[in-house]
Amino acid sequence: MKIVVDAMGGDHAPANIVAGVVDAVKELSVTITLVGVENRVRAELSKYSYPKDRIEIVHASEVVDMDDNPMDVIRKKKDCSIAVGINLLKNGGYDAFVSAGNTGALVAAATFYLRMIEGIDRPGIGLVIPQVDGTAFLIDVGANAEPKPEHLYQYGLMARAYMQSVMGRENPSVGLVNIGEEEGKGSGFDKHSYDLLKEKVPGFIGNVEPNKIFQNKADCIICTGFVGNVIIKLTEGLMESTATLLKREIKKNPLAMLGALMMRGALKGLKKHVDYSEYGGAPLLGVNGIVMKSHGRSSSKAITNAIRATMREVDHNILDKIKVSLK
Amino acid sequence: MKIVVDAMGGDHAPANIVAGVVDAVKELSVTITLVGVENRVRAELSKYSYPKDRIEIVHASEVVDMDDNPMDVIRKKKDCSIAVGINLLKNGGYDAFVSAGNTGALVAAATFYLRMIEGIDRPGIGLVIPQVDGTAFLIDVGANAEPKPEHLYQYGLMARAYMQSVMGRENPSVGLVNIGEEEGKGSGFDKHSYDLLKEKVPGFIGNVEPNKIFQNKADCIICTGFVGNVIIKLTEGLMESTATLLKREIKKNPLAMLGALMMRGALKGLKKHVDYSEYGGAPLLGVNGIVMKSHGRSSSKAITNAIRATMREVDHNILDKIKVSLK
Repeated sequence: MKIVVDAMGGDHAPANIVAGVVDAVKELSVTITLVGVENRVRAELSKYSYPKDRIEIVHASEVVDMDDNPMDVIRKKKDCSIAVGINLLKNGGYDAFVSAGNTGALVAAATFYLRMIEGIDRPGIGLVIPQVDGTAFLIDVGANAEPKPEHLYQYGLMARAYMQSVMGRENPSVGLVNIGEEEGKGSGFDKHSYDLLKEKVPGFIGNVEPNKIFQNKADCIICTGFVGNVIIKLTEGLMESTATLLKREIKKNPLAMLGALMMRGALKGLKKHVDYSEYGGAPLLGVNGIVMKSHGRSSSKAITNAIRATMREVDHNILDKIKVSLK
Repeated sequence: MKIVVDAMGGDHAPANIVAGVVDAVKELSVTITLVGVENRVRAELSKYSYPKDRIEIVHASEVVDMDDNPMDVIRKKKDCSIAVGINLLKNGGYDAFVSAGNTGALVAAATFYLRMIEGIDRPGIGLVIPQVDGTAFLIDVGANAEPKPEHLYQYGLMARAYMQSVMGRENPSVGLVNIGEEEGKGSGFDKHSYDLLKEKVPGFIGNVEPNKIFQNKADCIICTGFVGNVIIKLTEGLMESTATLLKREIKKNPLAMLGALMMRGALKGLKKHVDYSEYGGAPLLGVNGIVMKSHGRSSSKAITNAIRATMREVDHNILDKIKVSLK
């Protein structure tokens, strides 16, 4: 299997990307093509020993910044690692593309160069999220800034195909994020989305309230990109704030400090359970190619895990599964 | 001060409402009019001793259910506790109305009978939320199902008036919930909202990303009712799920169990810090009267705290402060 990886994307690139790729070729049956500024990538690679025939470099002279406007990237930075990488995938001989770079630019480049799967109007970014028991698939978490109800039912079909094939979930259930459980809740947009999901998506079980999102209500959880982005970023922020506050409370009392030490294993277990980097990547679904978005703050471990998750998509032929689900 | 309280609203009514009201008249300089099914309210009241001249009952024959359609309540349940209570407030002699009942019905009845403050197009429900340090005011958390950018800047003005007068915050800052920090992020709706807030609301500091909501970025945090509802319900659900998962991890290890016991005080301190019932109520702003929404699952303590928070609104004459802020 041959996977193209954006060496320049994310906060700690290319160092963490290269480190994650080196681990990937050691642990997994994969060949990686790193796309980026050649001398910088080569300098990082020279720090490691690895099977030389399993990592190659393709030069891309430009780098996308995290605050670059996506459309400007398409128009003006044609030799950036995202555009070069996506075009390698488009032109054949590679199975997938992984990037921890600018989300908007990745979505724009993937849509522009790869085009959409017939029957899908807009791409969506999904994320496997931890539940109290197991996992669920949340989509969209921020690819689509101007969603329509039609896009949401298409996300439902793609999420189902993903959970069924890549995650091996039998007959996955699908829920719509809404501010009330009963049919008819929310705005006109929410009601229209509900109706379309009910009509077109097998396994649709109705609305899921936000307080139930982590409670195994549905295998696939559908929402707008704005709401999905709020869900993942709020979760991230709450975990950080809770940790800060708990540390502060613990410092008030030596007994509690000792207690916290004794609980360290349990707290680590909790952290591992809720840590998105355990999964590592967020598939960009709907475009005509397998594209994985990794978190901008990805560690090398998250990059390795994103490559592993991408390989599962290739193995299970997710593109064909989505196409079949649309028929 | 004379406050009307809906005796029939919420999951544990009238028991918890009556208990909270009895504590309120003992602790605070307030007279309460309980509105509800008289024999049921009287039966609850008979369990307590309290200054008899400080609690009166006004009979309302009908009860609003949590899943009643709001417009049906206005049309068909004219003698329900929400409608009767709101009309007492409207007809004078009372300072405010508090209800833990059906949110949609409360918003509909308050809008229909009290009408809007001139210059405000739609009501919004605000909530004082805990921050890592201090508090912020989040609005709207679910009053308005079809918001427009114009409503959001009006929420900004009302939130500022609330934080300034009721919470005593000097020159409160105002932020817009958005999926990126830079100007120009989000959908057309988000950009238009940003522009209006920038033009019309003093103290506007720009976008606040969801992971920063609990980090003292802004005193007033503005969002659509859908997003605000997602924020509070997701927070609730995450706290519950985290507690479940932590308990499970702790049970795996006797040392961690002991550690948790030793940390009990710290965990309680954390819970108190993030507990919404410490504040107790969510003001419904924009209607021509002081109306407080209390959580449907309110404890008696939350009801007492909601009455206390309502009294602060009356003391600080929030309606006049909002009107002045619109000029």
